[in-house]
Amino acid sequence: MSLVNENFSKLKAGYLFPEISKRVSAYKAANPDADVIRLGIGDVTRPLTPSIIKALHQGVDEMAKDETFKGYGPEQGYQFLREAIVKNDFHSRNVDINIDEVFVSDGSKCDTGNIQEIFSLKAKIAVTDPVYPVYVDTNVMAGRTGKADKNGRYKNLVYLPSVAENGFSPSLPEEHVDIIYICSPNNPTGTVLNKSELEKWVKYALNNKAIILFDAAYEAFITDSSLPHSIYEIKGAKECAIEFRSFSKTAGFTGLRCAYTVVPEKLMGIGKDGNKVSLNKLWNRRHCTKFNGVSYPVQKATEAVYSEEGKKEIRGLVDFYMENAGIIRNTLEKLGWKVFGGVNAPYIWFQTPGKISSWNFFDKLLNEVQIVGTPGSGFGYCGETYFRLSSFGDRKNILKAVDRFNSKYGK
Amino acid sequence: MSLVNENFSKLKAGYLFPEISKRVSAYKAANPDADVIRLGIGDVTRPLTPSIIKALHQGVDEMAKDETFKGYGPEQGYQFLREAIVKNDFHSRNVDINIDEVFVSDGSKCDTGNIQEIFSLKAKIAVTDPVYPVYVDTNVMAGRTGKADKNGRYKNLVYLPSVAENGFSPSLPEEHVDIIYICSPNNPTGTVLNKSELEKWVKYALNNKAIILFDAAYEAFITDSSLPHSIYEIKGAKECAIEFRSFSKTAGFTGLRCAYTVVPEKLMGIGKDGNKVSLNKLWNRRHCTKFNGVSYPVQKATEAVYSEEGKKEIRGLVDFYMENAGIIRNTLEKLGWKVFGGVNAPYIWFQTPGKISSWNFFDKLLNEVQIVGTPGSGFGYCGETYFRLSSFGDRKNILKAVDRFNSKYGK
Repeated sequence: MSLVNENFSKLKAGYLFPEISKRVSAYKAANPDADVIRLGIGDVTRPLTPSIIKALHQGVDEMAKDETFKGYGPEQGYQFLREAIVKNDFHSRNVDINIDEVFVSDGSKCDTGNIQEIFSLKAKIAVTDPVYPVYVDTNVMAGRTGKADKNGRYKNLVYLPSVAENGFSPSLPEEHVDIIYICSPNNPTGTVLNKSELEKWVKYALNNKAIILFDAAYEAFITDSSLPHSIYEIKGAKECAIEFRSFSKTAGFTGLRCAYTVVPEKLMGIGKDGNKVSLNKLWNRRHCTKFNGVSYPVQKATEAVYSEEGKKEIRGLVDFYMENAGIIRNTLEKLGWKVFGGVNAPYIWFQTPGKISSWNFFDKLLNEVQIVGTPGSGFGYCGETYFRLSSFGDRKNILKAVDRFNSKYGK
Repeated sequence: MSLVNENFSKLKAGYLFPEISKRVSAYKAANPDADVIRLGIGDVTRPLTPSIIKALHQGVDEMAKDETFKGYGPEQGYQFLREAIVKNDFHSRNVDINIDEVFVSDGSKCDTGNIQEIFSLKAKIAVTDPVYPVYVDTNVMAGRTGKADKNGRYKNLVYLPSVAENGFSPSLPEEHVDIIYICSPNNPTGTVLNKSELEKWVKYALNNKAIILFDAAYEAFITDSSLPHSIYEIKGAKECAIEFRSFSKTAGFTGLRCAYTVVPEKLMGIGKDGNKVSLNKLWNRRHCTKFNGVSYPVQKATEAVYSEEGKKEIRGLVDFYMENAGIIRNTLEKLGWKVFGGVNAPYIWFQTPGKISSWNFFDKLLNEVQIVGTPGSGFGYCGETYFRLSSFGDRKNILKAVDRFNSKYGK
């Protein structure tokens, strides 16, 4: 019986989604005929589009023939895909990223979870509150935190409240931090940091020799043309930020698995001896040692996301979900509820009426209108009294949900 | 400039395969007309088989339709695949493994690299020498070792020589270790531990409260029916071993990406407080926090590996490579060289004639017969004066290589 990694024991036992499942199962057991509508988990529901499917079939056919079979590919991703990425996601926005700065992977959950490995265990970490739990849990597992307090907040982690009172734009940390996780468009709040807010963070990072881990997994949902899509649209960001992108929500790839991470060549960390260390080289070493590349047909499919047809189709997918978001958002606003997000992000975040606790509101919705959402407190202490609905659903279900909201809570 | 993970600086700079590429490129630049045959890297060359291709296309088609589209799957893999795995790989050999003990992933490199995360940083690690570099490098990165000495051996790591003199069956460690990596059939030596040798290790692990990390990625290449395919064929192994399996070499999936890891529910580690901790639960937590499941069409394809047709096709693939292995092995033996492996494994491992250094022999082969192999010293100190050839090649090339060996080195 070898000694285990003791840090795992600090993790809070009840992860959000299993608890939701448990409560829904109990409700359905007691009410077998109930028609429960799930607007909880952030998973896409629409099928892959024709260009993607075509490219997948082509990729599969290549794997069937001697002349075109592919074994191990480059761990960082095929050049054809990395070229499509830099051209379409960066050069098109006048951001100069080269293909050696792009690392293709099988998911942003993996990338945002693994990136902490290249930093010192002594690095001081800041996260927004509420937050995507993966940023926190992976640092807990690595041993960068103490135990959780009664509010579920881990010792040694710096929490930056992101709430209605500050317009979901967290203040700079009061103490020095080395690493800051920022997700924009934000999961769970559905809010987006504008250019001047991102400039504030880049300036902070440059002045404080901190690194920003910028999760832009929901970038495709930005509709306001004044908002930055990449942190590298901000001057100086290549010296202080790593960016994560995903095809999961953009192109409906949650079941197909493809994402990428940008680590600029200019980006430096510091060694114990005070010397600069290239984070691009460290991440490359980590990526090549523990990862063997993304499935070839999936990389072909991802390339198709950037074809002219592909772009149109993807835009259609995103527009569909954003129409859903608009329908939900408008309905809740008309009920007089305080609603955020749902404009440049697929998540609708709102204050529970009467500011009742998130889990009480969860039970209320489940019992009264048979709608499942996600309690805000599951994303952190500051998420308490908030609630998240996802726009990734069938239109029929969204309209049914809206009817129930109106009948039950309308004036 | 945040502090970086200082352990990365301990990693030896020149990784094996980049150095090989460099020397081959230099040779080709100087000899542009040379017909270089690559028997170095262990990558498959034959296309995916018809059943696999059919299942991939079907999986892709399911992703195109509303009714059958799949978003996020279970992180551990779909039940249909885990059921096929336990039935075919374990129940068929009278090994009782259940599906909750199986974790499907995108590769054994990832799994063998990530597994160390669930153990204490204080765990004492043993590896065989020579060894698959991922076991070593991932422990170096995590900080379980000191610096490398002039032989490239890291301080605090226990090396177990696996050489001709001990029949490639390493002795038990002289000092206490917590974790032992065993790869059988072995990469790079191509040798296999038999039942009594595995029993020796299981007994050691049980008596010393150690955990065996058993890498069986090359299990499908076993031809001798007396040899165990799984460590769980040894009594007591479920209390002391984790097993890794891969479809990379078995089914030609190096470019498709699928593997799995077995963590028995009985397998316990120990917490700082002396209490038992389920390693299955720890790995599950790790897997769910940092991984989002394998691409759905790939899981469908992997299921097809276990269909009646699929099994036959896969057997054909493996037989083809093993015929290659036989051809190379027989040729080298007739030259009077000391050859190992190539019977129950796709790798041929041999002592360099005159016991010259592995890299000198590499240069000699490249210059004299334009054949690229892998220097044994790249796998560890005890690999010096050994050389690895891989049987994953076109038959035409293998025969051409064999002709060159005979003409140049035959008597």
